Amino acid sequence: MSNSQMDQKAVNVIKGLIMDSIRKANSGHPGGSMSSADFAYVLYKDFLKFDPSNTDWADRDRFVLAAGHESPLLYGILHLCGFLTIEDLKQFRQLDSITPGHPEHDMTKGVEATSGPLGQGFCVGVGMATAEAFLSANTSKDVVDHYTYVLSSDGDFQEPVALGAATLAGLWGLGKLVVYYDSNGIQLAGPTSRCDCTDFKKVFEGMCWHVLEVDGHDHDAIREAVKAGQAETKKPTLIIGKTVMAKGAATCEGSHNTHGSPLSHEEIAATKKGFGLPENETFYVPEDVVEHFQARFPDLKAQAAKWKEKSDAALAADEKIAAFWAQANTPRNEIKLELPEFEAGQSMATRKAWGACLDAITDSLPTLVGGSADLDPSNQTANFRKKVGDFALDGYTARNLAFGVREFPMSVILNGMALHGGVIPFGATFLTFSDYCRNGMRMSALQHLPVIYIYTHDSFYVGEDGPTHQPIEHVASLRLIPNMLILRPADARETAACLNIAMAQTNRPSSLMLTRQGLPVLGKDEYPQVEEGVKRGGYIVKDCDGTPDMIAIAAGSEVSMAIEAASMIKDKKIRVVSMPSMELFEEQDQAYKDSVIDPKVRTRVAAEAGRPEIWYKYVGLDGEVLGINHFGASAPAGQLAERYGFTAANFAEIMKRQF
Amino acid sequence: MSNSQMDQKAVNVIKGLIMDSIRKANSGHPGGSMSSADFAYVLYKDFLKFDPSNTDWADRDRFVLAAGHESPLLYGILHLCGFLTIEDLKQFRQLDSITPGHPEHDMTKGVEATSGPLGQGFCVGVGMATAEAFLSANTSKDVVDHYTYVLSSDGDFQEPVALGAATLAGLWGLGKLVVYYDSNGIQLAGPTSRCDCTDFKKVFEGMCWHVLEVDGHDHDAIREAVKAGQAETKKPTLIIGKTVMAKGAATCEGSHNTHGSPLSHEEIAATKKGFGLPENETFYVPEDVVEHFQARFPDLKAQAAKWKEKSDAALAADEKIAAFWAQANTPRNEIKLELPEFEAGQSMATRKAWGACLDAITDSLPTLVGGSADLDPSNQTANFRKKVGDFALDGYTARNLAFGVREFPMSVILNGMALHGGVIPFGATFLTFSDYCRNGMRMSALQHLPVIYIYTHDSFYVGEDGPTHQPIEHVASLRLIPNMLILRPADARETAACLNIAMAQTNRPSSLMLTRQGLPVLGKDEYPQVEEGVKRGGYIVKDCDGTPDMIAIAAGSEVSMAIEAASMIKDKKIRVVSMPSMELFEEQDQAYKDSVIDPKVRTRVAAEAGRPEIWYKYVGLDGEVLGINHFGASAPAGQLAERYGFTAANFAEIMKRQF
Repeated sequence: MSNSQMDQKAVNVIKGLIMDSIRKANSGHPGGSMSSADFAYVLYKDFLKFDPSNTDWADRDRFVLAAGHESPLLYGILHLCGFLTIEDLKQFRQLDSITPGHPEHDMTKGVEATSGPLGQGFCVGVGMATAEAFLSANTSKDVVDHYTYVLSSDGDFQEPVALGAATLAGLWGLGKLVVYYDSNGIQLAGPTSRCDCTDFKKVFEGMCWHVLEVDGHDHDAIREAVKAGQAETKKPTLIIGKTVMAKGAATCEGSHNTHGSPLSHEEIAATKKGFGLPENETFYVPEDVVEHFQARFPDLKAQAAKWKEKSDAALAADEKIAAFWAQANTPRNEIKLELPEFEAGQSMATRKAWGACLDAITDSLPTLVGGSADLDPSNQTANFRKKVGDFALDGYTARNLAFGVREFPMSVILNGMALHGGVIPFGATFLTFSDYCRNGMRMSALQHLPVIYIYTHDSFYVGEDGPTHQPIEHVASLRLIPNMLILRPADARETAACLNIAMAQTNRPSSLMLTRQGLPVLGKDEYPQVEEGVKRGGYIVKDCDGTPDMIAIAAGSEVSMAIEAASMIKDKKIRVVSMPSMELFEEQDQAYKDSVIDPKVRTRVAAEAGRPEIWYKYVGLDGEVLGINHFGASAPAGQLAERYGFTAANFAEIMKRQF
Repeated sequence: MSNSQMDQKAVNVIKGLIMDSIRKANSGHPGGSMSSADFAYVLYKDFLKFDPSNTDWADRDRFVLAAGHESPLLYGILHLCGFLTIEDLKQFRQLDSITPGHPEHDMTKGVEATSGPLGQGFCVGVGMATAEAFLSANTSKDVVDHYTYVLSSDGDFQEPVALGAATLAGLWGLGKLVVYYDSNGIQLAGPTSRCDCTDFKKVFEGMCWHVLEVDGHDHDAIREAVKAGQAETKKPTLIIGKTVMAKGAATCEGSHNTHGSPLSHEEIAATKKGFGLPENETFYVPEDVVEHFQARFPDLKAQAAKWKEKSDAALAADEKIAAFWAQANTPRNEIKLELPEFEAGQSMATRKAWGACLDAITDSLPTLVGGSADLDPSNQTANFRKKVGDFALDGYTARNLAFGVREFPMSVILNGMALHGGVIPFGATFLTFSDYCRNGMRMSALQHLPVIYIYTHDSFYVGEDGPTHQPIEHVASLRLIPNMLILRPADARETAACLNIAMAQTNRPSSLMLTRQGLPVLGKDEYPQVEEGVKRGGYIVKDCDGTPDMIAIAAGSEVSMAIEAASMIKDKKIRVVSMPSMELFEEQDQAYKDSVIDPKVRTRVAAEAGRPEIWYKYVGLDGEVLGINHFGASAPAGQLAERYGFTAANFAEIMKRQF
């Protein structure tokens, strides 16, 4: 067989695996998996740089299957790579298998990103290419020099988040990003023409991209396009591959019914027959296909070995590069931050404390990369930007990311950067706009990515901007995302302690909820326990003598109010607990938890400037929570606080009526 | 003075009001308000069709200030319209004023939409133009025939949600939508070139729009562009107005520092001097400007009166149109639905029950308009689509909205339709992707819009699609949005009852959380109280004799599990409560609540296939909640249920250990 005949045979074999694994699971998406197979195969067979013996090689090309529902295609190819067994393919979508319905990056060798929620894989690719450009510019092409490829579907391009990230990729001129758009014209519910009339070539050119259109089933055309994408160094490349849904299926080519359901046994047999595959054999992979696919493997291994030599030499030759690279490879929990001290007697917004901390660590953490969604001064990242410059516009060594008003693309680009590795990504906006990036944050958490989210203006204390800008439900509702660490510090010192915690995370994202308004600093003399206490998530910030009559729990801006309220009640013993992080507190052993919230003391209150519901977990049926369950209003913050009862005097009244 | 000189004077007077109101509040956004002033003035002065004596006139043109931070501009014009007093302008951003920081539609006469979160105002305009096209096609141009105008800023076009809605507006050919883009090149943190290189003309033409570029300070050019926009009937029009930030400011024209802070007293005085306004007078509005601005008012009033005649005649002449219009004007709480009955003994997914209900009401509710974000078969809207056709593609009388994979644009377009009035808007997707539309849902709630959200696949029972598609935190976290009604029915009958409730809402959105998997129908004989119970939010679905030993509370798919678990415990008296809506339950009087959850019975458990935290409000410190606080996995749903303990046997064990 000729090379091209062998390629066609290999694609047919992969399509056989796609049909078989979905049929066996009785669940999955054959149509798109089959329309994209030619591109994915050609990319892996002829282009993708990876080390077959080490999927973690730092300078490998990255491949993101944005169309996560096409996982059987990826799994089929990963089988040819030797990363998955036939047994794994047979366990597709089964409990405890490593071949889940949508790819999960920390489960399966060779899977670079967890995908499924459409549009986000595209942004992940933008983030990876951003990290690559930054790391390469700050080291050398001998150390970091790879492409990022993305395979996207129609649905990915309908999701607006992809268009937002595309704008940034175009602006940033990410020449080493090559995105393939499998344009099969069919989506779950029908032809894409029902939902779209977009001329993607025009739109992406308007967003400063290099755009090519090819027949997505023509292997030579795909090869030429990938080469042209590699050659274009100033712009990201979009390859629009015109394809046919369920390409090669015997009778249902082009049908939207192939999007989300297994093909019938008859259809599979007839399709295999058309492909020249044994009709009645399932999970058929002849040895010659494996050999053909792996023909490049010796070269790939040699390339990886050569990189080791080249990069070692480059690092040995330049101390600055070596130092940077060492930093890039330092585990997050080994990073030591030198953070400012904050003195008692001053009033300081926790967002300003964050700004002071950021200033203090900018120079010592050269791999800290991030920025704000056009709120630089409000989010206190303006100084960072002045110091380090805007990425791409001031060169690729710069590391402020000017995201513009694009919160959702921001969050997913941060995920891509974290997945790439070598950088510490952070992003900032107003807390109320965390809504815009909510599924991006969920994907940070699901993928165990230690992204740092900075959310300022964390309650109705935003004031005059009014209810659209005043978070009410946000703190509580973000605490409900599994594996998301929420940190809502009570003052400047707690803020520094929270930043330390966020920085040390290795397997989960953190969100810092910070105030717009000033808060009294908890001085070191009176409150020596702050730093150690914050590590525990909740701690006694102000105790009484002996067993308390009441425990008052508060978080963030309500802690100082609670301390003051407690001080107003002379005839009762009140313990005040600061709870910057419910998640960390819950992780403590029972003895510690009981030492803070004494189970015998059932007279309890809590306060937080947000929805009260989840605090009942701590105060129970007999307690009372000072919270807010309605939208805010446009007015000076102090007047709102009076109206909503967020004063020490009112909280003291609430305390009194518990007795 | 010539007409054009008077126009210029009027714009200057408006700019004076902008500067003064922001200065007085010591808070606000002068820069963009001033750059957009020429367009907004020309639109209101010469084009906008409204009734100065009735801001609720059904056939008025709609104007959406997408750039909500430019509220002082809108308020200045609404003063010239006679809708706001100078005292109102002086109360800008103050407690209880009707001139909040961002416009709020149900607070201020002449404000059509609450805006502030960028990008959404654009989508609201798309929704309004959609409603107009639909209502006009189903009645007559004598009844409905108006334009929708949107004033957007740079930030609006950076938000991806706007691009998603733009695609739909282009596909749908909304010729009566005219969007002005105030392209002043400056955003909060600097020039837009830091964040954008987009050629918007190219991009919007690629999305099938009619695009014009003008000098946004040239009144004649603006007029010509608006006329051209009106004349183009097959495509929506984007007018890109090149403008100067803080146009006319004495020394800080073009500076990004004017974006979000008041101008100094000196700057204001110097600017007024340049404008020929009295330097030391604040809130200056000379009578001749009011007269000039209101010159068109007699004509406007005559036009409104003429519409009344024309529309009355059209309605009198055609029974079908009259019936449709009557339906369009029927208050939501007067709508009676004929819903199917569901029989005991069958197992039915609540999403299928919703589908059956939708089928049943489609014909009798011709103003029910909506669709799915490309999940028509999964969301059970495919039949609706077959019956009523795709809007625009099958004509403007059709009323299935094929949103494509665009959840966030969907939600905000629904808001725009609800704001327009005359239609009952609904949108459907998987619950996990409610994340994508979260701030759109928040804006439904904040604006008191009775949008109906249909969220199917509401828990880990999604199964094989895995953790990206399995909601964990969503039900609980959406319950935290103020004024959002969450309905999670336990079976087909509760589903019908919940749809009745959602339909009857007049001032808040509803979200129905529906299962993918089958659930036993609660038969009418054994459970006659379902319909009345659901109205109360929570009710006793299965009681015991006398005072219970334990109360078990559950929602949605966990109710039948709880009933079965209770039946396994023979030696204790267990009351089972179904709680389809916490919000409705909380609204009941204390006596009812106590009759369901007896305060004397402190032995309590709860179950829901999602985050457990908020249930502690009902079970307290001594209770136990069967919930799930980690991500799901890709596997058949039944296996996951076993693993996560969502079986009657396990819940019975949990019940037993409370004693």
